[in-house]
Amino acid sequence: MSVHVFKLSHVSPCLSCHRLQESLLSSASGYRNYRGVLNWCVVMLVLSNARLFLENLLKYGILVDPIQVVSLFIKDPYNMPAACLVIVSNVFIVAALYTERRLSVGCISERVGLLVHSINLSVTLCFPVTIVLMVKSITPVGGASALGVYTVLFLKLYSYKDVNKWCREMSHAKARNLYYFVFAPTLCYELNFPRSPRIRMSFLLRRLFEMVSSWMIPIIQSSMKPLEVNIIPLSSLSHQVPNHLLWLIFFYWFFHSSLNFIAELLQFGDREFYRDWWNSETITYFWQNWNIPVHKWCLRHFYKPLLKSGVSKWLGQSAVFLASAFFHEYLVSVPLKMLRPWAFMGMMAQLPLAWFVARFLRGNYGNAAVWLSLIIGQPIAVLMYVHDYYVLHYREGSAGGGPE
Amino acid sequence: MSVHVFKLSHVSPCLSCHRLQESLLSSASGYRNYRGVLNWCVVMLVLSNARLFLENLLKYGILVDPIQVVSLFIKDPYNMPAACLVIVSNVFIVAALYTERRLSVGCISERVGLLVHSINLSVTLCFPVTIVLMVKSITPVGGASALGVYTVLFLKLYSYKDVNKWCREMSHAKARNLYYFVFAPTLCYELNFPRSPRIRMSFLLRRLFEMVSSWMIPIIQSSMKPLEVNIIPLSSLSHQVPNHLLWLIFFYWFFHSSLNFIAELLQFGDREFYRDWWNSETITYFWQNWNIPVHKWCLRHFYKPLLKSGVSKWLGQSAVFLASAFFHEYLVSVPLKMLRPWAFMGMMAQLPLAWFVARFLRGNYGNAAVWLSLIIGQPIAVLMYVHDYYVLHYREGSAGGGPE
Repeated sequence: MSVHVFKLSHVSPCLSCHRLQESLLSSASGYRNYRGVLNWCVVMLVLSNARLFLENLLKYGILVDPIQVVSLFIKDPYNMPAACLVIVSNVFIVAALYTERRLSVGCISERVGLLVHSINLSVTLCFPVTIVLMVKSITPVGGASALGVYTVLFLKLYSYKDVNKWCREMSHAKARNLYYFVFAPTLCYELNFPRSPRIRMSFLLRRLFEMVSSWMIPIIQSSMKPLEVNIIPLSSLSHQVPNHLLWLIFFYWFFHSSLNFIAELLQFGDREFYRDWWNSETITYFWQNWNIPVHKWCLRHFYKPLLKSGVSKWLGQSAVFLASAFFHEYLVSVPLKMLRPWAFMGMMAQLPLAWFVARFLRGNYGNAAVWLSLIIGQPIAVLMYVHDYYVLHYREGSAGGGPE
Repeated sequence: MSVHVFKLSHVSPCLSCHRLQESLLSSASGYRNYRGVLNWCVVMLVLSNARLFLENLLKYGILVDPIQVVSLFIKDPYNMPAACLVIVSNVFIVAALYTERRLSVGCISERVGLLVHSINLSVTLCFPVTIVLMVKSITPVGGASALGVYTVLFLKLYSYKDVNKWCREMSHAKARNLYYFVFAPTLCYELNFPRSPRIRMSFLLRRLFEMVSSWMIPIIQSSMKPLEVNIIPLSSLSHQVPNHLLWLIFFYWFFHSSLNFIAELLQFGDREFYRDWWNSETITYFWQNWNIPVHKWCLRHFYKPLLKSGVSKWLGQSAVFLASAFFHEYLVSVPLKMLRPWAFMGMMAQLPLAWFVARFLRGNYGNAAVWLSLIIGQPIAVLMYVHDYYVLHYREGSAGGGPE
């Protein structure tokens, strides 16, 4: 009977309208195109922020007045120590350039060149720390920005030094495009960067629109306020979601909008600033793919040279990890002017976590674990700093000038 | 110089570490694998609901006691008129089966068979309406569920009748698996459904877990409460997001978890209950892909027969659309016991919207427009009903037994 029916329904296909297949959301289907879900997230983000933006605009007015900021800077440059710090950084760029020029014509030996570069690089890292810790008027945000610029510069000049040395060793051509490299969205120096054929105006304007969308500031302001007020009870879960959203917005703003904007402007061709970290099924994959400029630099100028010098793979990885933890701490502790081990410990906590996820979780479960570590783990470290900062500054203030 | 450098860097590939490429999030990259973003949504949903669930559990205790529900039903069946209605529906199934048996042996003519079927189908649609409108104790949720079951049954019996007629016309074998079809997650009858080879216990349990996750009830409860309280000011945007989330959860719960659970249990092979509507770039694509059982039925038993009978394509599409709008209205107005045109109008508003989106928006912008229409459009219709229902029931109540 069954065979009979099958034969018949084969003759008249309109009678059979089903076939053996899985639902798209079942993992067995192998379907993976969820571009629409990303759009949904963007729409939801824009909708909820549009409300927040309007509410904030009605309550507080425009929070940042660009003319006021510029006039403040022109009238009294000492009020903007962070901006001054950034301008001063040119000294280190010129020093590196000058050293390389000398080296290229053989005026100084390799040994002297290395010494000068080492001093220059060390000062690049230490000078801003001294200034940030000494100048009282510098704000945490200003300090962090300045230190960020100096860290990027340190990595770039280190790469510049390395590549020029490699060129001399191979008796290659020397290039003098250091300032292009300083502004280009990469940390790895190269003689001949791939260039995009032309500046696409529409692309540039779209990225610019994303960058300056001023609703970013009101969100930060309004989500920081309850954070400071409710800091003591630390009703933790509720703060982690906005923190995480801020991180996501920051990621998009910096790694997609800003770096692409700069790259388009400079016709810099390589736009791989991130890979598909959102699909990470292990913690390791996440760290290797969310920040490609730094990952590339670490691989090219730190990990591979270490391996070449005879260090074991495992030791090399640990060294990269420690260096990364050091810079995380450097960029947070110094601007806040308090040395706390939270960022460093947060980075170190990644090691057992990575082992656990890789060992016990696969596929979508691994991916969910990575997301969970981002949603919960990272904001905890942020909260620790905010808590300590609050206790240090506001408690003292209220104890000194408080009631009674 | 440029050519010279290019040649050199070609010789030593370690010097060049960039290549011309787009960022993954740029539409030009053609990248579309965002499975991780879907996981992110699930993690965020679970996290925020876990909090809500705990809060509700602490505040209200367990809201639904399954033993109480069952004992209530056994003690006094008239208290559960909706469940009784569903049980009574067997009469219509048996009537259809009996009619087909008679037709297959030639006891009654095609004309009489069609008449009996038509009466049976009309009563299937009208009988529950009468009961729901007459029985005072029936709740809106119970009424909607019963009407939903009868609507599904109507579509199934219609398909059963059609296919059996086609079989007779082609002098095919007759199948008698009507009860399997009644429970199978499809609306299109077929002589020989594709079957999955075995019941996968892990798949079944995962779907069951998703289905019974009891946190669903607390969300609905807690998101309905502020809805009723703040109904008059209708500070609209803020309510649309939870409404939309409820719809998304309902979609997953019904079209993925429940239908797959039933299908796995019945070894029903065709699991295409939805297609990738989340990537819809036009309103039309959304309506053709979010509810495949209904879409398939409409195509097979309504649109194609209409075309065959000489109706134009445009008229056929309009007829399908009107029928769909009718059923939307039927499933909402009758259980609420108030005839309002909002669901019907909501469906009709899709026509100009679909034209607008298809005409002016492409790609991700079209997709964002579809999402926006879901996030904003649909909840507005829901709010209209809730508003009217509230005014009808609670205002009258408070006017009768209110203060003074």
